[in-house]
Amino acid sequence: MHIKEFQRMMRQIYFHHDSRRGKAKTYAWLREEIDELGEALEENDKKALESEFADVLAWLASLANVVNIDLEKAALSKYDTKCPKCRKTPCACPLSK
Amino acid sequence: MHIKEFQRMMRQIYFHHDSRRGKAKTYAWLREEIDELGEALEENDKKALESEFADVLAWLASLANVVNIDLEKAALSKYDTKCPKCRKTPCACPLSK
Repeated sequence: MHIKEFQRMMRQIYFHHDSRRGKAKTYAWLREEIDELGEALEENDKKALESEFADVLAWLASLANVVNIDLEKAALSKYDTKCPKCRKTPCACPLSK
Repeated sequence: MHIKEFQRMMRQIYFHHDSRRGKAKTYAWLREEIDELGEALEENDKKALESEFADVLAWLASLANVVNIDLEKAALSKYDTKCPKCRKTPCACPLSK
């Protein structure tokens, strides 16, 4: 599924809730999902990991809907087959991170 | 672009770095990107927001690569056109979040 289609699906399922909740609370819930992803990483349980990755992506798309950002367009505008810093694939930047 | 293709593109650009950095540090960087997204939300600058949404999605895909999770499969397995809790579109759960 395209990133754009996933974001549209999230809009169809959740936008009535997301828009009422607003950006601050939706962002807060995205942070909670990031915490839960961290816990699943420590447990190393594949089923839990899949569920938490799904939730983070879902809340990221919901937040993008609330602030009217096209997630696919934003991602491909920055990451267009090359590292946005060194312009190479694979990235030739030093491993500072 | 499909979610799966975006994850594969991240692998081509960054997996040599991501795999050396490992899951704990890659997760830590995802958290930093979430912080930066929060700052961009407060500033309400569309260009900055697009860039930070792109970074969060990129680091989420990198982390999924490190722990061998198929992000698209995980997302569609949980969010298959309906809310996974009430099984309805739009979601009919009470707005508790």
